[in-house]
Amino acid sequence: MKVTALAGGVGAARFLEGLIQAVPQDDVTVISNTGDDEEFFGLHVSPDIDIVIYTLAGAIDREKGWGLHGETYTALSALARFGYDTWFNLGDADMATHAHRTQMLRAGAALSDATRSIAAAFGLRITMLPVTDDRMRTLVDTDAGTLAFQEYFVKRRTADDVRAVRFEGADAARPAPGVLSAIAAADAVIIAPSNPVVSIGPLLAVAGVRDALRETRAPVAAISPIVGGRTIKGPADRMMAALGMRPDAAGIAAAYAGFLDVLVIDEQDAALASDVAATGVRPVIAQTVMRGPDEKRALAETVLRAVQ
Amino acid sequence: MKVTALAGGVGAARFLEGLIQAVPQDDVTVISNTGDDEEFFGLHVSPDIDIVIYTLAGAIDREKGWGLHGETYTALSALARFGYDTWFNLGDADMATHAHRTQMLRAGAALSDATRSIAAAFGLRITMLPVTDDRMRTLVDTDAGTLAFQEYFVKRRTADDVRAVRFEGADAARPAPGVLSAIAAADAVIIAPSNPVVSIGPLLAVAGVRDALRETRAPVAAISPIVGGRTIKGPADRMMAALGMRPDAAGIAAAYAGFLDVLVIDEQDAALASDVAATGVRPVIAQTVMRGPDEKRALAETVLRAVQ
Repeated sequence: MKVTALAGGVGAARFLEGLIQAVPQDDVTVISNTGDDEEFFGLHVSPDIDIVIYTLAGAIDREKGWGLHGETYTALSALARFGYDTWFNLGDADMATHAHRTQMLRAGAALSDATRSIAAAFGLRITMLPVTDDRMRTLVDTDAGTLAFQEYFVKRRTADDVRAVRFEGADAARPAPGVLSAIAAADAVIIAPSNPVVSIGPLLAVAGVRDALRETRAPVAAISPIVGGRTIKGPADRMMAALGMRPDAAGIAAAYAGFLDVLVIDEQDAALASDVAATGVRPVIAQTVMRGPDEKRALAETVLRAVQ
Repeated sequence: MKVTALAGGVGAARFLEGLIQAVPQDDVTVISNTGDDEEFFGLHVSPDIDIVIYTLAGAIDREKGWGLHGETYTALSALARFGYDTWFNLGDADMATHAHRTQMLRAGAALSDATRSIAAAFGLRITMLPVTDDRMRTLVDTDAGTLAFQEYFVKRRTADDVRAVRFEGADAARPAPGVLSAIAAADAVIIAPSNPVVSIGPLLAVAGVRDALRETRAPVAAISPIVGGRTIKGPADRMMAALGMRPDAAGIAAAYAGFLDVLVIDEQDAALASDVAATGVRPVIAQTVMRGPDEKRALAETVLRAVQ
């Protein structure tokens, strides 16, 4: 069973940990958000790609929930000496990943080549694809002005009221090689429990991706990242409300209506099932809060059962 | 008293530590070898510039004799994962320096701009100049083939027999802004106790530098890096012998004949004074082996007295 997942960062990575327990890695393709990509100190950083790779490789710092375990931050401290902003916490081993990616890009490789190389170096056998090899940037219009996503998310800790979200460059961006065929040829497409606006939104903004989701013969399922009216992590709930979306499972269903077949919602949100169904999406109620490996695997199996 | 020093790496850095005790930093210009510059992992590394800056800033790891104190090597270990050669020991804080330099160069700055920025960030007030902003590479022809300097020096630990040393790009290299005037306008020019072939040789290979040394009205003094028939550190003795030069103080005098006025030689080499004098260079006998700060300062004062 070939499974293609659309993924953002932390939430997606946690779900995918379960998925690769339920499906052989060789049968999994992950299409990753690149709207958060940013250049720091001359290094091309792809936060969502890396958090998925690091997490699936078991290299993530589980205490912190981000970064590599055993990480040091010597270079970042040293960069402060040269007057650089150091609000984006780049560890030394993490910088090695970015240096390698940057090297490959400067030598003419595509982001998808660099991504493949990094995933392989971390011992993964999944197919890891950036949604596009072209530059795309998620911009957040806020009361404090327009911010790049990392600025909004990390530097200013999502403190600003969001007015709009845009994907600069998305109009001209072409899907990376393999993206459309991975959606078309999958036995199941799963949208990970990620922020629909800033994590999955950039993927849908790339020409051809939304059509591919609509046209694929595979069932398309999503897991709601909003449980009991709140996101597990991150600003999705506030952001959806600010943008006039319902900040709940029904809002997630509405965001993906047109191509979504199944939405897995949490037991706590059982009362929303009829609102989800009203969007034309079949609700599946399950325990979606993942605390450990068993719950991650169980959620993946629930989703796979729901689309079979 | 304005002092301009021509410098290589470790030996020069140790001498310059004494010099800045004897002369205010504002009056010191250091012209640095760039023939050893190399790109590692996409980062422009200038080993001789950095060892001088780190040493004069008191940031060097004195136990190891190279690298920054408090350094970690997390990124280097992580780079091995991607298949990179990691024989060149780049620490994490050191990489921050190279990332900053690389950023500036990519943005269009000259190596001399980056060098000034790094020296200032380390709190130095000396004028630190690369001999040239143009790319120049020291190549060592050996029995094992042609090696870039770092490959010969670090990777293969100077194990190969040297047949010739060349400075690729030196013909087209122009002196960096300030280099020729620093030699012309100095009250004293000092050639640090560095390898005459691979540390000072590249400086002399840049068009105009040798002429500036010949024409300056300032006295030009050198300190012999060879004491008792051996270099304090590095392969200068073997290299000079292999290239048909006398591997002693007289050989140093001969290498710089034509522009050198004074050569400071060690007490152990007092018997070589007449051979030095025979090259037209005035020998000054002193204790040149520097063990601590007092000996470094004393050597600097000896050299300054010799040219006054």
